[in-house]
Amino acid sequence: MKKPKWVIEKEQARRAEEAATVWLFGLHAVRDALLNPAREKLRLVVTRNARDRLADTIGGMEAELADARKFPVPLDAGSVHQGAALEVKPLAWGSVNEVCAPVAAERVVLLDRVSDPHNVGAILRSAEVFGATAVIGTQRHAAPETGALAKTASGALERQPYLRERNLAETIEALKALGYTVLALDGEAEQTLEEVAAPIRHLPIALVLGAEGPGLRARTKEVADHLVKIPFASDFGSLNVSNAAAVALYALRP
Amino acid sequence: MKKPKWVIEKEQARRAEEAATVWLFGLHAVRDALLNPAREKLRLVVTRNARDRLADTIGGMEAELADARKFPVPLDAGSVHQGAALEVKPLAWGSVNEVCAPVAAERVVLLDRVSDPHNVGAILRSAEVFGATAVIGTQRHAAPETGALAKTASGALERQPYLRERNLAETIEALKALGYTVLALDGEAEQTLEEVAAPIRHLPIALVLGAEGPGLRARTKEVADHLVKIPFASDFGSLNVSNAAAVALYALRP
Repeated sequence: MKKPKWVIEKEQARRAEEAATVWLFGLHAVRDALLNPAREKLRLVVTRNARDRLADTIGGMEAELADARKFPVPLDAGSVHQGAALEVKPLAWGSVNEVCAPVAAERVVLLDRVSDPHNVGAILRSAEVFGATAVIGTQRHAAPETGALAKTASGALERQPYLRERNLAETIEALKALGYTVLALDGEAEQTLEEVAAPIRHLPIALVLGAEGPGLRARTKEVADHLVKIPFASDFGSLNVSNAAAVALYALRP
Repeated sequence: MKKPKWVIEKEQARRAEEAATVWLFGLHAVRDALLNPAREKLRLVVTRNARDRLADTIGGMEAELADARKFPVPLDAGSVHQGAALEVKPLAWGSVNEVCAPVAAERVVLLDRVSDPHNVGAILRSAEVFGATAVIGTQRHAAPETGALAKTASGALERQPYLRERNLAETIEALKALGYTVLALDGEAEQTLEEVAAPIRHLPIALVLGAEGPGLRARTKEVADHLVKIPFASDFGSLNVSNAAAVALYALRP
């Protein structure tokens, strides 16, 4: 009997994912990845100048020398390579249950279709600064680990767990089962973040943010425990999503 | 007797500034500018489709029709025009003394060489949301009012006073003379923002942020009343400058 089609497709998807590699660009991102022992490194392409500047971090890795004007690696739009590119595998942080198992007042950030790598990069930085346990996006409609994301994350991509799950609503249910209270940010909410968080500050909290424009999906709002808003003085305007994440993580500090 | 050279140069600079115009791009930014009665509008270039979508806001203004593929306006790098471009004059908000004259618990944001338009755009949005009186940059080394800034500001550029002054240290002195306490964010500071702000929350406060990397200039630190930090849990990492501004404005809400 042949394997059913969906099993074959799932296996193909897994193999494609395992085969997927990412090029990181720029001295800062490449240096941080070289220094990360958990990062699987495949190929390093550098100019002579960049090789000298990275000399202390290259270690035993073979560096392929390249000419800056004929740099042989395909760049993301808007990226600059600064003479250094490193091909890597995405980091394997583990499952939601492993990474997010609560010990104390964990904070987890969930992203509902936030796809702009600049926003996700900034969110990874804020998550790291405020000690969040993980940032979780979806496999589709989320920012993949790209050079642009790594650059905006300014090193945080190597240190801050960034998981991408198949289904956000199921992930929210899994976090609830682990003991998290799930707060979804929604400008139309009646209660403020601080009001809802005050009595549960010492407990694990997951914070959900939607993409600018479309906001949270209906299913996301349905499975969250509370819809909450950041209080604001103005009748106009809205926060950029990474700014909303930073303010919320600050407001939720244990 | 001839005018001294510096007077002539100053007059030329003022004339150049008065002559300067900006192209705003994209349906959202163009719509917001068309709706702003204070905005001096010079030229509107639109595709047929964009003209229809903006029909309710064009009013008496003459719309020059253009082909989307041969759009006759020079774009900023990384901008998309979405079929609409509007040439405008920068908004004239007035002087620091006029705009920032304190009535109650004013908040003003000062930017020390923050030049990335995406960061400044996000800061304008946060300033608007948290009711800040003005955002002030320097004439040099600050993000000028460009299409990219307008797009990231998502409408806030039309509503949030954004001043650009010649000398930031002198502007800080002027704000102090108006009764502001000036807090400069510095990761190395000993006191936290909240500690310093607690007793002066009901008074006017100006917040200074430096560019990522170089940070605040020595002269800026010298003239500020206090250096303060955002408390953070992590040993690594730093906030993106717009995220730091959002958190600080939230923490300083009256």
